Amino acid sequence: MNFYMPTMVYQENDAVKNHSEQMAGYGKKALVVTGKHSSKQNGALQDVIDGLEKYHTAYAVYDRITENPTVDAVMEAAAFGQQEGADFVVGIGGGSPLDAAKAVALVIQNRDSSKEVLYQNISLRHLPVVAVPTTCGTGSEVTPYAVLTREELQTKQSISHLIFPELALVDGKYLKNAPLSVITNTAVDALGHMLESYFHTRATDYSRMLCQYAMEVWGMAAGVLFGTEPEEEDYGRLMFASSLAGMAISHTSTGLPHGLSYYLTCRKAVPHGKAVGLFLPGYLSVLPEEYEPQVIMALRTLGFGSLGQFLGFTQEVLGTLGLTEQEEQEMVEGIAKNQKKLDAVPFAITKEQIYQMCSMVR
Amino acid sequence: MNFYMPTMVYQENDAVKNHSEQMAGYGKKALVVTGKHSSKQNGALQDVIDGLEKYHTAYAVYDRITENPTVDAVMEAAAFGQQEGADFVVGIGGGSPLDAAKAVALVIQNRDSSKEVLYQNISLRHLPVVAVPTTCGTGSEVTPYAVLTREELQTKQSISHLIFPELALVDGKYLKNAPLSVITNTAVDALGHMLESYFHTRATDYSRMLCQYAMEVWGMAAGVLFGTEPEEEDYGRLMFASSLAGMAISHTSTGLPHGLSYYLTCRKAVPHGKAVGLFLPGYLSVLPEEYEPQVIMALRTLGFGSLGQFLGFTQEVLGTLGLTEQEEQEMVEGIAKNQKKLDAVPFAITKEQIYQMCSMVR
Repeated sequence: MNFYMPTMVYQENDAVKNHSEQMAGYGKKALVVTGKHSSKQNGALQDVIDGLEKYHTAYAVYDRITENPTVDAVMEAAAFGQQEGADFVVGIGGGSPLDAAKAVALVIQNRDSSKEVLYQNISLRHLPVVAVPTTCGTGSEVTPYAVLTREELQTKQSISHLIFPELALVDGKYLKNAPLSVITNTAVDALGHMLESYFHTRATDYSRMLCQYAMEVWGMAAGVLFGTEPEEEDYGRLMFASSLAGMAISHTSTGLPHGLSYYLTCRKAVPHGKAVGLFLPGYLSVLPEEYEPQVIMALRTLGFGSLGQFLGFTQEVLGTLGLTEQEEQEMVEGIAKNQKKLDAVPFAITKEQIYQMCSMVR
Repeated sequence: MNFYMPTMVYQENDAVKNHSEQMAGYGKKALVVTGKHSSKQNGALQDVIDGLEKYHTAYAVYDRITENPTVDAVMEAAAFGQQEGADFVVGIGGGSPLDAAKAVALVIQNRDSSKEVLYQNISLRHLPVVAVPTTCGTGSEVTPYAVLTREELQTKQSISHLIFPELALVDGKYLKNAPLSVITNTAVDALGHMLESYFHTRATDYSRMLCQYAMEVWGMAAGVLFGTEPEEEDYGRLMFASSLAGMAISHTSTGLPHGLSYYLTCRKAVPHGKAVGLFLPGYLSVLPEEYEPQVIMALRTLGFGSLGQFLGFTQEVLGTLGLTEQEEQEMVEGIAKNQKKLDAVPFAITKEQIYQMCSMVR
């Protein structure tokens, strides 16, 4: 078994401010990659700008990353960064800007490359990346993955290059003013990372340790998703659980629910976390009997008394699949050909079992 | 709170063989740093040589590292490595050769430096280090520490430079033929890392996660120390627990029992693990009442029903301090002036409490 987690992580109140000297020290000019709105509203963009200015590091802001960024969006951001002479990248936001930031760091470093380079199995260098997450789901700040939408294939896929950020600055306060729907969708994405990594072909004691602790921390804060008044610490807990789950999938990759989710997101515009979460009770339900003690342990750690209670939670908080029979068939037939995702399942799953997973949230 | 653990770790049967291409790829000529006997007996040295030869990487073996290596020993090994033109270092063994390997990697890289450089607060580069542990206590394969004996100060101290190995190749099989005394002494050293890190001023959720999992794994294999016939997996478990505990102290540093142990080792030649272990029940006993639930949890996870049972274990397996009244006084007065170690204790410990720690194992 393997452990590799080279990103330097600081999780604390005012993480960006406290470590801005290090952040500003990765180069002479930063390309700040973010979305249009949230990083302005939650203060993260201003914190990063203040930190860069304090240490006299130049910067240019590219704020046009949207949800589920495409390869073309990455190429556009990279062209802007090249033109600005950026020599490192700071990503701020949810998974979309963070994943885009990694891909951009690769393209800028290899300046004459076309977009095909993103999915080629060759060894390439990349600019240093600093990641500032503002949601609690992606874990991208501590993973080497950069999932982009490949429009020509109508799916989402991580680029071929493994890019760990050099530095992750994690601060729960950026979550404080986020809409509950964003907190829920991203917290459920993190939950998917924990459960898919825990029940994964490549799970090891290292990855299970990360998952177990992540579940414990997530369970402490999960009340927020049911409408409980959040304690001050809950934001930090959700962010921490998300980072731990990110470290876990860095070792195992994600599994079948993520694989299925891409259909919902690309074809039906279902937000990523919700799309993942809908398949989680089904995934636990089709695990062979020998996994039962671990399933019960996982659910209890998360704060659910039973699989039924967990299913009730997803139905209440996330709703249902909302697919026609034909769409569902197309999705299942598609995943049944995705050997990589099938290989992530630690037993020989049948097509019937995948339909069963869907039937629970029809 | 911070998480930083850049070493790439492989723990598995035949780890050296499986990853010898990576090991051999850190340079053109390896300086292999090890002790006189054990790495020959347990097969680790031969595995490393086979791996280097397979990928046509030259090497020179320096096998004169003894227990508690001195600064002079490091300088001698480094002079040999320089003369041989080594451009990376492979350390094999317990904490002594692994810690020496790191210091050697620093001195070789900075060729005209005198031994003073080891304890200077300046930023220096070092050759890449590969670590192959053969005991289950040091955790050095995943820490940035390199503890050497400073003869002029009659104590042990980590060098000023933080040197994480690039690669750690961890294989329980090297423990199989080790004398029980070596397994016990090193497993108790790891136990010290867990308990000192868990009850440490700088403990965080990250470090506590590592300690908790380490305690669980250690507890599964601890029977070996009481004479239970080992299961095949126990060797790997003890090694794994040691790595996890190493990762924990990488974040917190060690605490008071380690601080006290150096007196016993430097003045009375008590093996490191035993010297640490003697102070562990006492350390738990002087923790303020609010720590009681955590102390009970820790002891249970390790497989001890109570503090008394834990004390019985140390008395049975490790014996007693064996100091005269005057020596004990000298030791306590010495540590009472060691602000760094006192600062590691998460409450204001008194000199009386340190005497109390000693009184339990007199």
